[in-house]
Amino acid sequence: MNAGTIGEDALIRRLAKLLPGRADVVAGIGDDCAVVRTGRRDAFDLLLKSDPVIEGVHFTQTAPAEAIGHKALGRVLSDIAAMGGEPLWGLIDLVAPASVPVKRLEGIYRGLATLARRQGVAIVGGDTSRGKTLEIHVFAVGRIPRGRAVLRSGGKPGDVLYVTGSLGGSGQERHLRFEPRLAEGQWLAAGKWATAMMDVSDGLATDLRRLTAACGTGAVIEAARIPISTVAKRLKDRRTPLEHALSDGEDFELLFTVSLRKAAAFETAWRRQFRLACNRIGELTEKSGRLELETRGIRRVLKVRGYEHFT
Amino acid sequence: MNAGTIGEDALIRRLAKLLPGRADVVAGIGDDCAVVRTGRRDAFDLLLKSDPVIEGVHFTQTAPAEAIGHKALGRVLSDIAAMGGEPLWGLIDLVAPASVPVKRLEGIYRGLATLARRQGVAIVGGDTSRGKTLEIHVFAVGRIPRGRAVLRSGGKPGDVLYVTGSLGGSGQERHLRFEPRLAEGQWLAAGKWATAMMDVSDGLATDLRRLTAACGTGAVIEAARIPISTVAKRLKDRRTPLEHALSDGEDFELLFTVSLRKAAAFETAWRRQFRLACNRIGELTEKSGRLELETRGIRRVLKVRGYEHFT
Repeated sequence: MNAGTIGEDALIRRLAKLLPGRADVVAGIGDDCAVVRTGRRDAFDLLLKSDPVIEGVHFTQTAPAEAIGHKALGRVLSDIAAMGGEPLWGLIDLVAPASVPVKRLEGIYRGLATLARRQGVAIVGGDTSRGKTLEIHVFAVGRIPRGRAVLRSGGKPGDVLYVTGSLGGSGQERHLRFEPRLAEGQWLAAGKWATAMMDVSDGLATDLRRLTAACGTGAVIEAARIPISTVAKRLKDRRTPLEHALSDGEDFELLFTVSLRKAAAFETAWRRQFRLACNRIGELTEKSGRLELETRGIRRVLKVRGYEHFT
Repeated sequence: MNAGTIGEDALIRRLAKLLPGRADVVAGIGDDCAVVRTGRRDAFDLLLKSDPVIEGVHFTQTAPAEAIGHKALGRVLSDIAAMGGEPLWGLIDLVAPASVPVKRLEGIYRGLATLARRQGVAIVGGDTSRGKTLEIHVFAVGRIPRGRAVLRSGGKPGDVLYVTGSLGGSGQERHLRFEPRLAEGQWLAAGKWATAMMDVSDGLATDLRRLTAACGTGAVIEAARIPISTVAKRLKDRRTPLEHALSDGEDFELLFTVSLRKAAAFETAWRRQFRLACNRIGELTEKSGRLELETRGIRRVLKVRGYEHFT
C-alpha cells in the first residue's frame, strides 16, 4: 500500500497513532489547530498550526506572486480563526528551485507580509532550501483566552449549522483572494456563540463529515439554503452550482454550530456586528455518521465528496 | 537574479527585510530559534523553530526510514538546545509522492516518535500533501525561563570558544545519527555559563562566521584544538581531516563562548556534569569580521567555507 492508495485521512490516522502526546495538550491532531496549555496561571492557551502551499497543488506556475504569499499565510490564519483565536507569530519554510527569480520570491513574501501586517502577525523565522518544486510552508502560533478554544467536537444534535460568506468556484482565483475570518471567529468564541467550529478548506461535504464525526452526530443541510458564490453560479461545466458549493474546497469560510435556543439571538447579534453573510444551512442530527441533503422537502444521503490529497 | 545565484544567506536577508515584527519578539530571524514573550507575568519565553529535511538534499532515497525521522526532529531540537531551551510541542508537514509506501512513512514517523518520546516532546498536528519529493518539515515550540535564552550575539572579545563532541565526516551516516545536545544546552543556559551559543549545522567555518557576525567580533581558532571525528580522520579523499571538520556541516554540536574569567571554573563544572567532550578551540577577537586559523603558532585568515544552500 502506498500514500496514493490509502488516502489522506486514513494516512493521517495511521501516522498519528505513532506519535507521543503530553499532559498539557488540550487538543491534538484532528482539529483545525492544536491547543496547548503553557504555565498553570497563564491567561491564554496557545494555538499551533502548519500548512503548506505547493506549486502544482495549491497554485499554478502562472499565479501572481503576491497572491501565493497571501494564500500561504491566509490558510493558516483561517485555521486559527476557526478556533476563535488571535494569530501572533509565524515561521516560513521556503523550498525553491535554484532557477526561481529572486523577484518572484520577494513578491510572494510581500503578499504574505501585507496580510501579516494587517492581522498583526510577526514573521519571526524559518528556513530556505532548494528543491524541485516551489513550496511555502507556514507555521503559526496564536492565542485564545484559556479554555475558550472552539473545538470541532462541541456540537450536539439539534444545534443549528451556519456557514459564513458563500461557497464554490474556488478554482476561479477565489482560492487566492480569500480573507481569513479572524474577527468573526474571535467574536464567535468570545460571545460563546459557537458550540463547534472549523473552516471549510476541502469542500462543505467533506468538512461537514469531519465536523459531525468529531461531534458524534449526523447532519441535515438544505440545498436551498447553501450560499452559492456568484462565480460558482456562472460556471458552465458538467457539475451544478450546488455541486461546486458542496465540493470545490478552499472556500476558507467558517462552518459552525449554535445551540437552538440561542439561534435567534445569535442571528440578530451577527447582523449588528458584521456585514458578511452568515447563512443557516441545516442542523446536527442524532444519526451518527449520516449526512443528508434536503431538496424540496425530500431528504437524501449526501454523497458528494470534496477534495482529498493523494487520492 | 535567481535563488541559485544570490546564495542562501543573502536571500534570507533580502526576504527578511519585507517581513513585519511585533513588540513581543525578543529575537527574530537570524538566531537558532525565534524568542517570543507571551503574557507580562509569564515565567517562560517561547522558542519557535522550523526546519525541513528533503530527499536528495538532507537524505538519500536509500536512507533508513527511522533515521530520516530522527534527523527531521533532531535538527529542530538541536536549535532549541542551542538557545538553552526545553522542547515541548511539534508539528509535522509531510510532503510525499503518491508512490511512497505507507510502511516507509510509518518508519519515518516511528523514528521521529522515538526521539520525541525520549525528549518529552508531543507531536500535536501538521499536514500531509502530495508532491514530487519526499520532505518532512518539522515545527517545534520550546520554552526557557524568561530572559534566559542564549543568543548568538552575546559574545565579547576575549571570550573563550568551545565546541561539544567532534566535527567532520557527517556524510558518512553521522548526519542521521546525532543526538541533539538538549541537556548540555539547558545546563549552559541555566548556569549562565554561555555568553553566546549556536549549533553547528553548516560547518564550523560557516557557523563561526555567523556567530562572530552576530557578536560584532572576530575569532581565532587553533587547528590543533579542533576536535576531529574518527570518521573524518579515516576519510581518504582530496581534503584533509581538518578541512572536513571545518566544512562538512550537520555535526549538530554546540558552539558557544564563555567569558575568560569563568573559563577555568566552567571546564571543571562541565567535566563533573557530562561525559561528552567539550573542547576549547579558540577565542573571540576585536577584529570584527576576521576569522583566523592558527597552525603551529602562525595565524592565517580562515578561508574554508561550509555548506550553503542554493549555491
